[in-house]
Amino acid sequence: MLVVSLAPAADGAKYASELGVVTSAPRPLNVGLIGLGTVGSQVAERMLSWGPQLSRRAGVELCLQKVLVRDVAKRRTIEISPDLLTADPSEILENPAVEVVMEVAGGDEPMRSYIERAIHAGKHVITANKVVMAKHGPELLDAAAGKNVDVYFEAAVGGGIPLISTFRTDLQANRIERVSAVINGTTNYVLGRMASAGLPMADAVREAQEAGYAEADPSDDIGGFDATYKLAILASIAYEIKVRPDEIYREGIEGIEPVDFRYARELGYAIKLIAHTQRHPGRVEARVHPALVSLEHPLARVEGAENAVFVEGDLVGQVLLVGQGAGGRPTASAVVGDLIDLARSIRRGVQSRPSFSFDDRVGVIPIGEVKTRAYYRIRVDDRPGVLAAIGQVFAEEGVSISSFIQKDAWSHDMTVELVVTTHPSLEASLQKARERMARLEPVHAVSAFLRVF
Amino acid sequence: MLVVSLAPAADGAKYASELGVVTSAPRPLNVGLIGLGTVGSQVAERMLSWGPQLSRRAGVELCLQKVLVRDVAKRRTIEISPDLLTADPSEILENPAVEVVMEVAGGDEPMRSYIERAIHAGKHVITANKVVMAKHGPELLDAAAGKNVDVYFEAAVGGGIPLISTFRTDLQANRIERVSAVINGTTNYVLGRMASAGLPMADAVREAQEAGYAEADPSDDIGGFDATYKLAILASIAYEIKVRPDEIYREGIEGIEPVDFRYARELGYAIKLIAHTQRHPGRVEARVHPALVSLEHPLARVEGAENAVFVEGDLVGQVLLVGQGAGGRPTASAVVGDLIDLARSIRRGVQSRPSFSFDDRVGVIPIGEVKTRAYYRIRVDDRPGVLAAIGQVFAEEGVSISSFIQKDAWSHDMTVELVVTTHPSLEASLQKARERMARLEPVHAVSAFLRVF
Repeated sequence: MLVVSLAPAADGAKYASELGVVTSAPRPLNVGLIGLGTVGSQVAERMLSWGPQLSRRAGVELCLQKVLVRDVAKRRTIEISPDLLTADPSEILENPAVEVVMEVAGGDEPMRSYIERAIHAGKHVITANKVVMAKHGPELLDAAAGKNVDVYFEAAVGGGIPLISTFRTDLQANRIERVSAVINGTTNYVLGRMASAGLPMADAVREAQEAGYAEADPSDDIGGFDATYKLAILASIAYEIKVRPDEIYREGIEGIEPVDFRYARELGYAIKLIAHTQRHPGRVEARVHPALVSLEHPLARVEGAENAVFVEGDLVGQVLLVGQGAGGRPTASAVVGDLIDLARSIRRGVQSRPSFSFDDRVGVIPIGEVKTRAYYRIRVDDRPGVLAAIGQVFAEEGVSISSFIQKDAWSHDMTVELVVTTHPSLEASLQKARERMARLEPVHAVSAFLRVF
Repeated sequence: MLVVSLAPAADGAKYASELGVVTSAPRPLNVGLIGLGTVGSQVAERMLSWGPQLSRRAGVELCLQKVLVRDVAKRRTIEISPDLLTADPSEILENPAVEVVMEVAGGDEPMRSYIERAIHAGKHVITANKVVMAKHGPELLDAAAGKNVDVYFEAAVGGGIPLISTFRTDLQANRIERVSAVINGTTNYVLGRMASAGLPMADAVREAQEAGYAEADPSDDIGGFDATYKLAILASIAYEIKVRPDEIYREGIEGIEPVDFRYARELGYAIKLIAHTQRHPGRVEARVHPALVSLEHPLARVEGAENAVFVEGDLVGQVLLVGQGAGGRPTASAVVGDLIDLARSIRRGVQSRPSFSFDDRVGVIPIGEVKTRAYYRIRVDDRPGVLAAIGQVFAEEGVSISSFIQKDAWSHDMTVELVVTTHPSLEASLQKARERMARLEPVHAVSAFLRVF
């Protein structure tokens, strides 16, 4: 039976004749690639060396048409015909032969506008760009829906771990209750080295840089920005709301000292950079910060540059997804997987996946109203009355103490270190207690304040 | 632009007028449900109580048309209109109003023939039936392709863990190298109780039955059959070949004694029922058996009725997927997730997902040719020369010993227990060594033989 449907302007004609019959040998699907770095090389390599296999799975020949690079003459590790390379974006973005644009160069501009131009030219987009998708995702998805094209971004979060597709398809029968993740490999590597080798942060960061896990300027990772972008994307997809990165409470790992790992371990915890979001009536909680994680919790066991995402749905219960969260090959796996999925959809000559719809009425809870447990490390004079004074601050702020331990004494200046963990309390009260304690006369410093997850 | 494509006979007409325009308010998608037990109740419950939400996500109203039950008059835990219930399969299978059949009753016949009838009547099928999909999946998928309908079976393996979709979409850019899984909750619960409480197997099974984790007749789980069905499905999808359950080497957990858990732990291992498949040149390895798993390996940490699947792809590296592998709610999550995915596809008035293609030329390696490590527990006379005799058997069979420990002596009969682990060796050689040792005069028994994973 013949069925007629509305289909994307740019693609449909190639797969269906005007007589209404799908052609038996469809024309190849022409793809433009933006970026030929760590990820781009792997994407190009797979497409060039695995063509027949990919084309069979996609149901259509996939043809790498053009690759946008900064310097055409640069020596490259992969073998690629110089004819494929161009330094002129319009050779991809305004090229009528290109139907799909894959952007793996990263960073905000000019990539956002490249993606926008591709959409306006009626091209489908596949991107690994977390910054663009976190900041501008809803607008780009709206624009794509208006042009009847699709934007795929599985690679933007968690490398090759199937996350976006899990939310968009597999868990669609669920109300997502919460998502908790270790989603930044760099900080996880750094924290891991601090924990296992007792390194100060600066040394651990240098090691991460030497091992290729940290950038020359690591502040995007260390400061928690990268994790915030990823959480913004995950929360938006999970709850179908617009969560902007700047609405997410963010703290990096900068303040953590080696001694905190020792105390945490004594209490039964690891320290991880946690990205967490949770549904509340009419609002959601969303935050990125280092936290003490029970050694029993699977997130405590995430090693090195691995990523792990814990999802809780009301039907499915808890699902844990773990894998390499970054790197050329895992990210290329997601990009090329998206391409095959998209190609199958295009091959059928129809509109692609259902468009996103984002509910604007659901907002993010201000951090002060969030309830959490906390860990304080406090340096105080070693003399009578100190414990009472500190206990009184917590009591007056309505914060209930879970454990209270007096640690190493420094004989040279007659101070001791107190380690306090609390029961779940309002973040505002925990912060107030922190400020008030810092002003107490026998307190030298609140040297560490971390949440307990 | 208008595009015309070939679409399923039964569905297309409802979503597209003869004038070639998608109707703005499509007719609801009518669904028949087979089975109203643990899973079926949860599926029905979600569809009845969450209708608008599911319909919005599916892009079309989902309408539960009929439910096939054995006894219409039976009292049920969920509120469901008696008009929906029927005991006559043809009211679903031959009902022209029903477009999608969801089968969650389980077992081989009559479910295989119900699914076949549904396909022949031009209906799409969603099934949670691992037995039918493992034994007859390739034929049913072929039949479905011939009728231009689709068979979804995410729920057949690993409850709500996204597995089938991960292989079919997310990892399509990869060559899958291996899949290793703890995929049977019952045996994992039983082994866990034996390990933690030192229970004999019979007691642990009884506990599992009382906790609702084991059937009255637990042989399907304990004997490894259930895991074999699931591995057959996973291997078939992962490698795009037909792997039949009876081609998979299978051993249940029956022979394991509490003492083996103690010895395993001393050596740094847990004991799990492992389903494992691995690609070799031109062939695949596929086996289900209990195994010693390093305590460092994530599969060693899978607790209770949880399932965990480790996948290795050549691009993505290792991905681990964990969740509740059974139970009404997680399984319903997968079934209703499949329904939404299918509905989106039908709504577009097109043929559904790409059909499967299975390569018949790739076979399963006979177990004797597989290389693995092994653990032996051997009861021998406590006298000189015994170690030499045993060592000679291993040497003659070309099996290299990894560890050799003499354990508890029984003074009453002058015997001791030897625990031997080997380096990777041919399974045939390991078995030969086992037989030869059992015939040695000072050997009372080879009390345990387990693979080391």
